[in-house]
This record gives sequence, C-alpha cells and structure tokens, in this order.
Amino acid sequence: MQRKDFPSSPLGLHRVIEPAGALPQAAWRLDPSPGLWPDEVRVRVARLNLDAASFRQLSESVTGDAADTGGGHAAAMCAAVLGIVAERGKMQNPVTGSGGMLTGVVEEAGPDSPLGLAPGDRIATLVSLSLTPLAITDGLARWDGRSEQVPCDGHAILFGRSIAAVLPADMPVPLALAVLDVCGAPALTARVVREARSGGTPPVVAILGAAGKSGSLSAAAAREAGARTVIGLVPTQAEADLLTKSDLVDKVVIADARDPAAVAESVGAAGGPAQVTVVCVDVPGCEGGAVLATADGGTVIFFSMATSFSAAALGAEGVAADITMLIGNGYVPGHAALALDLIRAEPGARQIFESRTAEG
Amino acid sequence: MQRKDFPSSPLGLHRVIEPAGALPQAAWRLDPSPGLWPDEVRVRVARLNLDAASFRQLSESVTGDAADTGGGHAAAMCAAVLGIVAERGKMQNPVTGSGGMLTGVVEEAGPDSPLGLAPGDRIATLVSLSLTPLAITDGLARWDGRSEQVPCDGHAILFGRSIAAVLPADMPVPLALAVLDVCGAPALTARVVREARSGGTPPVVAILGAAGKSGSLSAAAAREAGARTVIGLVPTQAEADLLTKSDLVDKVVIADARDPAAVAESVGAAGGPAQVTVVCVDVPGCEGGAVLATADGGTVIFFSMATSFSAAALGAEGVAADITMLIGNGYVPGHAALALDLIRAEPGARQIFESRTAEG
Repeated sequence: MQRKDFPSSPLGLHRVIEPAGALPQAAWRLDPSPGLWPDEVRVRVARLNLDAASFRQLSESVTGDAADTGGGHAAAMCAAVLGIVAERGKMQNPVTGSGGMLTGVVEEAGPDSPLGLAPGDRIATLVSLSLTPLAITDGLARWDGRSEQVPCDGHAILFGRSIAAVLPADMPVPLALAVLDVCGAPALTARVVREARSGGTPPVVAILGAAGKSGSLSAAAAREAGARTVIGLVPTQAEADLLTKSDLVDKVVIADARDPAAVAESVGAAGGPAQVTVVCVDVPGCEGGAVLATADGGTVIFFSMATSFSAAALGAEGVAADITMLIGNGYVPGHAALALDLIRAEPGARQIFESRTAEG
Repeated sequence: MQRKDFPSSPLGLHRVIEPAGALPQAAWRLDPSPGLWPDEVRVRVARLNLDAASFRQLSESVTGDAADTGGGHAAAMCAAVLGIVAERGKMQNPVTGSGGMLTGVVEEAGPDSPLGLAPGDRIATLVSLSLTPLAITDGLARWDGRSEQVPCDGHAILFGRSIAAVLPADMPVPLALAVLDVCGAPALTARVVREARSGGTPPVVAILGAAGKSGSLSAAAAREAGARTVIGLVPTQAEADLLTKSDLVDKVVIADARDPAAVAESVGAAGGPAQVTVVCVDVPGCEGGAVLATADGGTVIFFSMATSFSAAALGAEGVAADITMLIGNGYVPGHAALALDLIRAEPGARQIFESRTAEG
C-alpha cells in the first residue's frame, strides 16, 4: 500500500497533523496510518520500551487515580498509554515530553527507503517514540503495567532519516532493547572523556545514578575512554552494593542526587571535584548537585529527561561556575555498536541491566 | 546589623526557607531579611531588570486578567511582581523559572565579604534575581508595567559567592544594566567560535534572534572571535532593517524561528548550515530549527530561557543530528568587561540596545 498523494519528507513532516510545520517530535499529533510513502518503512511492533522518566510519571499519576491493586494498576497504566497513543498518534508522554523506543519486525519497506531494511528483519528503533507514528491494536492486553517494557501489537512508521538497528542474535531481545534505548549516553560520555584527556591529564568522572542503565553503561564507557577515576553516586545502600559488585567504578558514594551540598561533598571526598559529571538520575532537581560537583573548566552532561533547562543555566550562573553544560544528544554515530560491545565486554553492566529488566 | 545565629554559606544556603537543603535558585522561598551575615552585602535597590522570558509571560498572563488599559495593565503587572516577591522572597517567575538582575547602591558590606564592595558603590548584580533575596518597599509605584526595567525601592542580599559589577561611568545605567543582563551570551559565543576556529576553518555562525539584546551582542562577539560568516535570523522586515542598519552581521534572513524547515532553508541559503548556531529567541519552540540549521559536528548554544531540554535532546536524536548542544551558562569569567567593551566598540549594537531600552 503506497501513498504518493503529496511528497514525503525524510524528517517526517508529511506525517504531522498539528501544529502544521512542526517537526514530528515537537508536534502534538501525527498521522499513524499504515499506508507508506515510498521512503518509509512499516514495522510490526512487538514491544515498546518506555523511557524511565515517562514510566515513572505515568506510574505516579496512575497511583493517584486507581486503587493500587494489581489489576487496577495494570488497567490504569494500559488506559494511560492507549489514551496518549490514540490522541497523539505516537507514544509521547505529554508531561515529560519523552517517549522511549520499540522493537518489531519489518513488515514493508518502501522502494526509496535508505535504511537498508527488508521485510522480516527484527529491529529496534533508535529514534524516540516521541516522533514515531504508532498505532496499537491489541489493547496492551499482555502488559501488567509494572515494567517499562510493554508487550504490544500494532504498527509503527520509520521515515527516511529515522535510525533503526537490526537486533543482535547473541542476546535476549529485552536486554538488547534496554541497551539500545540508552546507547547515546555511553557514546557521548566516551567522546567527552576522550576530549578531556586530550587536553592533558585523564579526567575524574562522576556518574550520578551510576547503578541505573544509562549510568552503568556511561561508567563503563568512561573507564574504557581513559578516565583517571570513575566515581559512582547512588541513593541507597542496596544500589551501592549492586554497583560495587559490578566493578564498573573506582569509588561508590551514597547521596541524594537532589541535595546539592551532599552531592558536592561526597564526590569531593571520593577524589572530586569531577572534570566530567554525567547525570543519569531520572528525577527532577539534580542540576545543582551536578554543577557543584564539577571543577571549574569541567563539563556536565545531562542525560536525564527530567532535567530543567533553566535550573541548569541559572544554577551554574548563580554559583559562578565556569563549566560547560551539555544537553545529552541521544545520537552519536556508532552509538548502538559501542553500547552493545560494552554490554558484551562488561559482565557487571550486564548484571545491572538484567537486574533492572524484568524479563531480562 | 550583623547576624551570626548560625553559620552562613557562600552559596546562600543559610537564606533558604523551603525546601530545606535546596540551593537558593532552586528554592521556593528565601529569607530576604536585611540583617547581614558576615560574608554578605546588602544593596539598596534602584532598578530591577526582568529577564525577557519572564516579562513576556507576565505581560501575557496579565493581559488575560486585567482590562488592557494603561492604568489597569500597570496595576496588574505591579501586583504580579509584588505578589511573587512577597511569597518567594525573590523575583523568580514561577512559570519560566527565570529572574533577571538589578542595580542599586551598596548599603552595607559584611566584614568577611570577598566581593570587594564598599558602601556607596553603584553596582549591578550578575547573578540572577531567581536566587537573590529581595524585599520591595515602594509598591513599584514608579513602574508603568510596559518595560522590563522596573524602578524599585527595597533591598537585596549578595552572598559570598555572588557576582556583582561596579557600573561603568561612561554609559547610562539602563544601557549598562541591559548589557550586563545578557553578558554571558557574547562571552560563551566568543569562546565556542574560537574553539571552532582552532579546529580548522573559521566557522559559519547563525544567530537566531540577532536583532535582540543577547543576539546582537552575540553577533558582535562571533565576528570579533573570527567567524567566517555571521548570519542573523529575525522574524520581521522591521527587525531585518534594524539589523541591516547595525552592520553587525554579514547576512540577514527573515524566518519564524519556530518553523524548523524555514529556519534550515533560510540559513542554508545564506551560506549555512552553520558550524555554530546561537539561540537568542525568547519564545518556546526554537529547538528544531536550531538543530536543522546546524552542520554535523557543529554546536548549538541555547541562551533562551524558553528552551525545552527534552525538545532539544529528542529533536537532535530524532533527525540523527551529530551536534553538540550547550545549555547557555550565564557565567564565563570576564563576561561583564567583554560585553561592555563590545557595546563601546560597536555603535550598531548600542543602537539596537537603545531602541530596545525604553529609557536608554
């Protein structure tokens, strides 16, 4: 089923319903209809992987609405996701603005698609769900609402300039999906650590939220890229034990990432301030601690979608911190291969992922 | 009047009332009482300079509330600002999170203050109003609500690590204040342009909102730092005429900064894509255009407080843009002197400031 009624755009502008002229990510509503333009690909969806900030927000909002029993919670979570997708034509949480990613099987590839995919390929999308046209057809009947990974039947559309990775054969799909979802973080961390090294001495790197998925892979990437010391900050003794056991970092410290003074003090005591600080904590309010934990001339990379732009900008200015602050761009060339190689090489990272991926 | 009932923090943590442990910028409410800790300075306030995003938001919200007559508008604007300051102990717009800055005269400097200020010094604060304890005592009776610059009597507190600049004697106070308010933008732009140059060829620089205050100074800074071409993007023919007359940029283009395709196309036609794109437009929705106007390997600097973190992060990922995205840090060492020197050297920039500063 091919559509040529008006020309397509590799960015997906032709699928934007409102507001007109917006990019698909910024748009309120997309057209998820299954007919393909010649440069598009249609994927039969197998699983959605909601991003952590969105999943947390949905869980919290639903807990307020529904009786917190097993059945009530699952039904409320399903209704929340189905409602968003029905209204917006994509799974973009209206509160966090974030999405996640999906896996599935290529159903049809338009003759002009540059993605190199063929029907039957088992793939994961590496562009956010927040810009991917999506229709759900099974009512999410197999989801218990307790995991970010959502078994799902339906279809999704890839544009000419979308990115997708064929799933590796040597690991379970939920693990590969979770790794690919955060693969921008280790890739950018590695790049920033290498740049800091090239300027002189190897940097001290602090990872806030180091026992999480993006945090553990970023820690592994920082070490591989030549960090002098990797400090992992976590909120609880249980996470500290998990991180210590993983052997991914040189120092483990326990502090609330939302408490600026505590973050600065604990990172300082472990060998900081850091030349590179990586924020992987998916709760609001971590900007101040990251700024204070970072040495003058250093860099903070914000990967958490809960980051507030103004809190970061004004927080650094407010304490006269001469630091570079990066918005974590989820795309770095080669990011998927780098992340999959890290998970193959680092059993500690794989342990953390498996402990955090229900069906892993 | 000196307070030593409990120790002070150079970051101002001792002035935070709620939530406990937050930095002053992130706090909901500060203690603006006039008694000083030994490392503090009290300033008699002469004028507030609200940041552009906050002023716009207040103006729009008030227009909905009050009859849009001269008197009603002024009263509503005064009530809005007075209400925020009374409730929060600082002028931080709860919607935008941003503040602005102030000028005044040093009234008392604690014996341990490291700022080098003495009673009688005429100064401007270079840390945001969003973290500066403030009390207003004149009901803003002299403000008409039509200008971001607010005549004001009251007092403000500077901490040990605050930054303030003694006002230059060679220019009117409103002009100096407006320049200092945005002085982080030209300083960071200059640094990024110099870094891009050091990597090879001089960069093409695109300034979105180039006929504004931070935009015009950033354009001047980019040129001085050795940009190959400076492209200024503005929304209207009137702004294009203003910018052309200023002679601050090499190419003037007209486009809506919120229309990604239009921004990319117009910057491209003027010599882009840019290696460095600077976003100085104080309205939401400019992330996509900035990303699309920037070449792979290039850098976007977001100075607008209306920037959405998630829109930037996901927007770049969504179009597979391998670019560096910076949160515009308002503090760069030497920023005040650099900005004041630019306004002295560039009559075109001064013209733009005077046209945008009611009492300039």
